[in-house]
Amino acid sequence: MADAKPMAFAGSLMDRADNIRANPGQLAALMNFKARLLNLDGLMPVFDDQGALTWGTLADAPENADLVFLGLLDGVARFAAVPEEGAEGTAYSQPQVWQAMQRMQPADLAIYGGARSLVDWHARHRFCARCGQPTQIAKGGWQRNCAACEAQHFPRTDPVTIMLVENDDRLMLGRGLGWPEGRYSALAGFVEPGETIEEAVAREVFEESGIRVRDVRYIASQPWPFPSQLMMGCHAMADDDALTIDTTELADVRWFTREEVAAAVAGDGLFLPPPPHAIARHLIDWWLSR
Amino acid sequence: MADAKPMAFAGSLMDRADNIRANPGQLAALMNFKARLLNLDGLMPVFDDQGALTWGTLADAPENADLVFLGLLDGVARFAAVPEEGAEGTAYSQPQVWQAMQRMQPADLAIYGGARSLVDWHARHRFCARCGQPTQIAKGGWQRNCAACEAQHFPRTDPVTIMLVENDDRLMLGRGLGWPEGRYSALAGFVEPGETIEEAVAREVFEESGIRVRDVRYIASQPWPFPSQLMMGCHAMADDDALTIDTTELADVRWFTREEVAAAVAGDGLFLPPPPHAIARHLIDWWLSR
Repeated sequence: MADAKPMAFAGSLMDRADNIRANPGQLAALMNFKARLLNLDGLMPVFDDQGALTWGTLADAPENADLVFLGLLDGVARFAAVPEEGAEGTAYSQPQVWQAMQRMQPADLAIYGGARSLVDWHARHRFCARCGQPTQIAKGGWQRNCAACEAQHFPRTDPVTIMLVENDDRLMLGRGLGWPEGRYSALAGFVEPGETIEEAVAREVFEESGIRVRDVRYIASQPWPFPSQLMMGCHAMADDDALTIDTTELADVRWFTREEVAAAVAGDGLFLPPPPHAIARHLIDWWLSR
Repeated sequence: MADAKPMAFAGSLMDRADNIRANPGQLAALMNFKARLLNLDGLMPVFDDQGALTWGTLADAPENADLVFLGLLDGVARFAAVPEEGAEGTAYSQPQVWQAMQRMQPADLAIYGGARSLVDWHARHRFCARCGQPTQIAKGGWQRNCAACEAQHFPRTDPVTIMLVENDDRLMLGRGLGWPEGRYSALAGFVEPGETIEEAVAREVFEESGIRVRDVRYIASQPWPFPSQLMMGCHAMADDDALTIDTTELADVRWFTREEVAAAVAGDGLFLPPPPHAIARHLIDWWLSR
């Protein structure tokens, strides 16, 4: 994807150093006074005066908190502590999350997003889904093990398709229930077991809008840490434009002309476009620039 | 992806009918004598004499087994029962799985794969990962709810990158530990929280082979039901060819010329190519046909 702007939450400079995760001796040796702990307030970042992420030492971690190994940055081992509680709800439902996002530089955003997904997963997965017993952190936080039934559990990353559907040089955009007034964005949905990316796109579009699509094409992806999605941005063509909206999921779906989309992105249109941090905005910018 | 052969496990003709899942009355009404239950022996398919999937009625389900709603096929509601135990290990470690796969027609394979992923997930997720209490099946099997802490849990689909790395018209292929003698295939690895598809490809290739790649390009995807991966096939270019193999994960990595790869696929080469059901084979066929 030819794109001048960085994709929010991508481009982390952290070296994940996965060889260290599986080496308990090496990992323990890194957990010394030089190691740095990402300062978090629950799941929220703690900024300095310039809006940069701040780092403490492992001594700052709450007593008995599990520590996850994020990797190496500037040659220094980086960790984050698992908070008491995980998150609930989407990013849209948490205004303080959007405010924090807007303050952060791209490099910080990528580190924070990856760390947030990981510690949030631990906070919501302290027990074994197979047998119900407590699990223990393993491999520097990239695994949890159950001593009772020997099951191994891994952090989730949920693949989601998000798509621009095009007909006659117009884009299909929709509004979720409870979204900010006037906002329209790309339709999206989770990939389910038993389908390809392209099949998931076609199913979601049909379910939500009644439109059949063809020529589904992958454009770009984005890690989205609310809680841990892999957003896979696609483009698809539609031959028909007669909408049948799934009103249990969406407040509205409409076709917008190229001029209407351009005006909205310029801040002077019929609707509010998706915010710059969302991959939907990247997809729309890509479409406008073609 | 221009490809004459169907992608194994893709192309299901089942209508997932997601509107029915969320409608308990409609779902209950469909669970009548006309509904069909996929015959499974544990997680294995039960074939007729022609190697086709067989279907019974809901009366055939084990007592107290959870039933998942697969969707509508030929206008008939289709279900599968959650077995006592889920699966462990990769497909490569289960020869009976490969034998069953090879008997099945593409349409059956797609239905079986989707059903297997779903019932296997239920069998391994009867308890709440958040609080350890038993969970209850919901939405026709597309969700589990915890009555104790009100957490909702959803079937997993784990995104995996699998990639052909090219240098000077040669392909990098590797052998996993314990693989069948002589087999080489594409490198692969799970996408982790906090990275894009393209970043995951670059990280995995570097970790496993020491090679830096550029120009990562998505080619095709495949649902892989052992237990529930979304395989995302990519192509990437390498400028360098000096390998540093991660021997904790791989038995070998090598560069093969176009002629060597073509000979292997023709059944007369230096190595065994990935089997036809694997997306790696599709990627190799795509590369050879370019």
